Amino acid sequence: MSGNSTKEILYIIKTGGNVIDDETSLQNFLHNFSSIEEKKILIHGGGKIATAIGDKLGIQSKYIDGRRITDTETIDLVTMVYGGLVNKKIVATLQSLQCNAIGLSGADANVLPAKKRAVKTIDYGWVGDINKNDINTSPWQLFLNNNMVPVVASLTHDREGHILNTNADTMASVIAVSLSKLYQVKLIYCFEKNGVLTNVADEESALPELNNITYKELKDNKKLFAGILPKIDNAFDALNNGVNCVVIGNSNHLMQLLNEESGTKIIS
Amino acid sequence: MSGNSTKEILYIIKTGGNVIDDETSLQNFLHNFSSIEEKKILIHGGGKIATAIGDKLGIQSKYIDGRRITDTETIDLVTMVYGGLVNKKIVATLQSLQCNAIGLSGADANVLPAKKRAVKTIDYGWVGDINKNDINTSPWQLFLNNNMVPVVASLTHDREGHILNTNADTMASVIAVSLSKLYQVKLIYCFEKNGVLTNVADEESALPELNNITYKELKDNKKLFAGILPKIDNAFDALNNGVNCVVIGNSNHLMQLLNEESGTKIIS
Repeated sequence: MSGNSTKEILYIIKTGGNVIDDETSLQNFLHNFSSIEEKKILIHGGGKIATAIGDKLGIQSKYIDGRRITDTETIDLVTMVYGGLVNKKIVATLQSLQCNAIGLSGADANVLPAKKRAVKTIDYGWVGDINKNDINTSPWQLFLNNNMVPVVASLTHDREGHILNTNADTMASVIAVSLSKLYQVKLIYCFEKNGVLTNVADEESALPELNNITYKELKDNKKLFAGILPKIDNAFDALNNGVNCVVIGNSNHLMQLLNEESGTKIIS
Repeated sequence: MSGNSTKEILYIIKTGGNVIDDETSLQNFLHNFSSIEEKKILIHGGGKIATAIGDKLGIQSKYIDGRRITDTETIDLVTMVYGGLVNKKIVATLQSLQCNAIGLSGADANVLPAKKRAVKTIDYGWVGDINKNDINTSPWQLFLNNNMVPVVASLTHDREGHILNTNADTMASVIAVSLSKLYQVKLIYCFEKNGVLTNVADEESALPELNNITYKELKDNKKLFAGILPKIDNAFDALNNGVNCVVIGNSNHLMQLLNEESGTKIIS
């Protein structure tokens, strides 16, 4: 941990669909986000809007094991909705709050090159996997050092001219790890629950902290909601690869999450 | 004109719907664009794709005097299509051609603040007018000096959280004027015709040059296709406000337009 005190703090905040889908929640969240004085990055997906617009366009959402299958129609849809509608709405709102946001997909300035997932048993389509070693930190530094706030849609590119759909939680973890060489990174996963719940029906059951041993026990005893497992895995990946602090919690409590007064802190 | 020799060349290229709508034309155009060694900016609208997707979504295009009326449904549509689908497709393609493109709407890094058009007799809706004096050149310089190539969708913002629809020809002219303080700007308007035609049915009738006196005569004699008049007005605005060179011509002849070997050169 030596040397961290000389690095600037960088908050990397991933927000979930519950914020994107609700206008009041989004406005509150962005108001709080804009008030953060330290360097910061926002990562978002597209919530239910993509599904709603896809339905109108006759594009059906396809899933295998909870993962969206991204055919050509679907990558066009998410490029429009995540990269266009949602991203630009967030950027324009942040600009109105005197936060100098810049909207990015992974193709823009090549901030997030990825590899199209190879077809094994399942063809996921236009889905990209990112590797922390492939990320060039210089455009990120350029934006952050010039008082710009990256707002990143969960889209990468294959360097062959194709946009790829990438899981926003994984993206947040990989960006956090890449930038932890340069900054004291605090990674915050915001979603609709108060943290890692031991009883999914009870918001009071959020754990204040979670270490790897407890995680394994809870997982083995099937105490955790299956949907949260990839998020926790991404959180541990970040913590084990140089990120200073990882917290999972409720989007509506952003300021308390930053102060580690709410949510579940992931610890080693 | 003194001092121009010390300024770097900057090409500002606006491309029209004919390129966006045709995959082969787009690929050829971007291949040529990527080969330009000087600093460069690409400005684009959305072609017919916005109308096609709008039709599927049940959003009808509305026009008064050839200007699109931008209601709330329509601004969401063009934000998705221009700012998302078209912009990211162009950026990803340019990245595959080793051109370090960065996609921007006017909200991103506040590159193009605008004013929502006041309602007089017609309510144009979410339409933005830009003024060259409101444009801060520093983010543009930051991108250009760091080897990034801005790819700009024809969207601005009102600094109050709203994206605005802005005419791409006007946008190109205003950006060109703003940056002419810093660069030797060459503005190229690309579209589906060989230049300013004195007979719209005859591509051989393209004028090699057009000055203001001849323009007035041709206009008075109704020799010109009405649709080209705003483009020519924007071209003269640019030339009269510091832009070094303005050429109007065919997207398929980009390299010849840069060399002033094709198209109509606007002269004072």
